[in-house]
Amino acid sequence: MAVNLSAPQQDEILQIDGIRVATGCAGIKNNGSTDLVLIEICEGSTVSAVYTQNAFCAAPVTVAKQHHKEGTPRYLLINSGNANAGTGQQGLQTAIASCEAVANQVNVETHSVLPFSTGVIGQQLPLAKIQTAMANLVSGLASDNWFDAAKGIMTTDTIAKAVSKQVMLGEQRVTITGMAKGSGMIRPDMATMLSYIATDAAVTQPLLDMMLRQAVAHSFNRISVDGDTSTNDACILIATGQAKNALLSDINMPEAQTLYKAIADISQYLAHAIVRDGEGATKFIAVKVEQGRDSAECRQVAYTIAHSPLVKTALFASDPNWGRILAAVGRSGLENFDLTKVAIYLDDICIITAGEPAADYTEEKGQQVMNKDEITIKVVLNRGQASDTIWTCDFSYDYVKINAEYRS
Amino acid sequence: MAVNLSAPQQDEILQIDGIRVATGCAGIKNNGSTDLVLIEICEGSTVSAVYTQNAFCAAPVTVAKQHHKEGTPRYLLINSGNANAGTGQQGLQTAIASCEAVANQVNVETHSVLPFSTGVIGQQLPLAKIQTAMANLVSGLASDNWFDAAKGIMTTDTIAKAVSKQVMLGEQRVTITGMAKGSGMIRPDMATMLSYIATDAAVTQPLLDMMLRQAVAHSFNRISVDGDTSTNDACILIATGQAKNALLSDINMPEAQTLYKAIADISQYLAHAIVRDGEGATKFIAVKVEQGRDSAECRQVAYTIAHSPLVKTALFASDPNWGRILAAVGRSGLENFDLTKVAIYLDDICIITAGEPAADYTEEKGQQVMNKDEITIKVVLNRGQASDTIWTCDFSYDYVKINAEYRS
Repeated sequence: MAVNLSAPQQDEILQIDGIRVATGCAGIKNNGSTDLVLIEICEGSTVSAVYTQNAFCAAPVTVAKQHHKEGTPRYLLINSGNANAGTGQQGLQTAIASCEAVANQVNVETHSVLPFSTGVIGQQLPLAKIQTAMANLVSGLASDNWFDAAKGIMTTDTIAKAVSKQVMLGEQRVTITGMAKGSGMIRPDMATMLSYIATDAAVTQPLLDMMLRQAVAHSFNRISVDGDTSTNDACILIATGQAKNALLSDINMPEAQTLYKAIADISQYLAHAIVRDGEGATKFIAVKVEQGRDSAECRQVAYTIAHSPLVKTALFASDPNWGRILAAVGRSGLENFDLTKVAIYLDDICIITAGEPAADYTEEKGQQVMNKDEITIKVVLNRGQASDTIWTCDFSYDYVKINAEYRS
Repeated sequence: MAVNLSAPQQDEILQIDGIRVATGCAGIKNNGSTDLVLIEICEGSTVSAVYTQNAFCAAPVTVAKQHHKEGTPRYLLINSGNANAGTGQQGLQTAIASCEAVANQVNVETHSVLPFSTGVIGQQLPLAKIQTAMANLVSGLASDNWFDAAKGIMTTDTIAKAVSKQVMLGEQRVTITGMAKGSGMIRPDMATMLSYIATDAAVTQPLLDMMLRQAVAHSFNRISVDGDTSTNDACILIATGQAKNALLSDINMPEAQTLYKAIADISQYLAHAIVRDGEGATKFIAVKVEQGRDSAECRQVAYTIAHSPLVKTALFASDPNWGRILAAVGRSGLENFDLTKVAIYLDDICIITAGEPAADYTEEKGQQVMNKDEITIKVVLNRGQASDTIWTCDFSYDYVKINAEYRS
C-alpha cells in the first residue's frame, strides 16, 4: 500500500515528439508480465545520464557508460526481473549482446544502444530470451506507450510511476514526461534506481547535463528507503529538440529556468513516488535539518535519523517515542556538536529546545502528529546557515516480508 | 528466542571478594519485576569505566563521569525500565538525588555513588519510588546476588547475561565475574549498553584502564544489532584486590596477560550474548573483513554489511541472496576501491573471487550455509594487511514487532 500515491491515468502521460516506446514480454520475470522496454530517441537529440556510485556497479551500467562515450545514444533497452549485476565477464558480454540484438533490428551501431537492467542480483541474464523477443519489441515502437513502459520497468513497485508536465518557453509549448521504478534497495547515490525523463525542448548538451545533475541532487539523491545503494541506479534525461524552441544553452535564460523547474518538479515527484511506494511503507517522512554549517552535515544528521531502524519502527507504530530521534541525532557524528543548542520538532510540535524537553510538549500532541501518514521531522542545529531535506518511509512487518520472500 | 544462548546457572556465577550486590523492585517497570540493582565495592578497589560517545548522553552518564572524577566509586546504582535520557536539567537532578538516597543510607559522600539507567528514553525517572525502595535495597546487600542482579538489569533482553572465570596468577587463584544487559539500540561506541565486570585481583588504575579499553575494543565495540548507539552505554571494570596477588602494574607481566585474557574472554562472551539475544534475532553472524589497509576500513565494510536491512532480511529468510552482500560492499565507500581484487565467502564457500562469480559456486552450497544459525560472512579486500571482525544478527518480523510495541 503506497502512501498517498495513486497510479497515473493513461491519458495524463503525454507523448514526446521524437520519442517512441515499446514494451514486451521476454519471460525474464517468472509471472509472464512485461519485462522489456525499448525507448527510441530521434536523431539530433541530446541525452544526459547519471549512474550509480556503487563500486560493484552492474554490467549494463558499465556498458551504458562506455557506449554513451562513443556517441549520442539512439536506443535505450531496459529489462526488469534481473539486474545483471555480480555476473562478471559473462554479464558484460550479455549486456553488449543485448545491445547488438537491438542494433541488428534497427540498423544502428551497437554503441548507439544503452542497456539497463533491474531485478535480482547475481543471476545471469537470459540473453536468448531477449534476442527472441526483439523483432516483436521493435515493431511495437509507438509514441503513446509511456504508460505501459512505466508498468514494464517495475519490480517490487506496487504502483507505476510516471508524470507529465507542459510549460511555455516564450511562445512555444514544450512537454516533459518522466517515469521511474524503485521501491527497495533505495538510497540513490548520484542517481536513482531507473528513471527516464524526456522533453521535446531543444537544449545543448552542457546545459542538459547541468539540469540533470541539479535536478537529481534535489530529488533522487535526497531519498532513502533502506540505505542500500543499488548496483544498477541510472537516470536519463533526453531533449529531442522537436519543439523547435530557440535552443537553450544557458541556465540564466528565463526559458531555461522554466524548463529546469519543470524537470526538477518531475524528478521530485518521481523520487517522492519511490519513497511513497517504498517496500512496506505506511508513512511518508520528510527529515529536514536546518542551521547546519553546511548541507553535507545536515544530510549526515538527516540520514542517521532516516536509517535508524528504531526511528523507522516507531514511525510504523505511530509511537511518539521521540527519544529514538534524539538518540539518532546524538550519534550522527558531527564535530564539536553542542546538544544544548539543538531543537527537534515533529511537524510544528516542539519536542526539544536548547537540548531540553520542551515545557509545553505533551504525549497527546506528539501522538496527534504520529497518527498522520505524512510527517516532517525537523532538527535545528543552530550552528550555521545551511539546511537540507531528505525523504524516507517507515519500517513495517511488510518490509521484512517483502525482503525475506523476494526470491521465493 | 536467543541464538544458541542459554541462561547461566546460579551456581556458575561466582562471587567476588570485596563486592556485595542487592536487587529490588521500585515499581519503575510496570510489570513489578526487579528494576533496581546496587553494587557495593570495598575500599581500596580500583574502578575503570567507559561510557557512550552519543552526544545526547543520558543524565546518569553525565553524573557518573563527574562523580568518578571526584574519587574511586564505592556504590553503583542501576535502574532498568527508564533510561533517564532526554530529560534535561530535571533528569540530572534526579540522577544526583538517587545517588544521595544511597549515600544517606550507607554514610558515604554522594560522589562515591555512580548512577546508571536503562529503558525508555524521554521520561522523567520516578525519584520518589527509588528513595522509598532504598532502605530495603541496602539491607539486601550480599556477596551471592550476581545472578539476580543480571536478571534485574534486563529490559528487552530475553535471557540474563552473566559469566564467571577463574585463573591462576602465579600461586594465587583469582575470580572474574561479569554481567551485561542489551538487546536493542545496540551499536556500542566505546562501551556497551550496561556491563559490570569485577575481579578480586589487585591491579593498578592505569593498567585496569588499559585492560578495559582493550577488552571493550575487541568485544562490545565490535557488535551491532541495529546500528543505533545508545544514550546510556556504560561498561565498568572493578578490581577489589582482595585476592592479595602481587599487585599487577604492567601489561607485560605474565600474570597481567593471564588476567587480561580472562577479562577479554568475559567481555567477548557478554558482547556475543547481547547479539545472540538481539531483538528478534534468529541467527548469529560474524562479519570478517581481511586484507584491508587498516582496521578502520575493515570495520567500515563490515558495518555496512551488518547494517544493511536487505542483507539482514535475507539472513532471516536463509536466502543465499549474496547479491545484497556484494551491493553492500560496493557502497561501503572505500577510497580507490578495486572490485576486481575482492573475494567474498559464506563460511568457507567462495561466492566471488577477483570480483567475479566463483566458478564452482552453486545455489545449493550457498543454501547449506544460509540454513545454519551461525554464519561467517568473509570479505577479502586484497589491498593490505589489516583485518577486523564484528558480530551482528539478522532482522526478523519480531524485530519490528518488539520495536513497534516497545512502549505499548
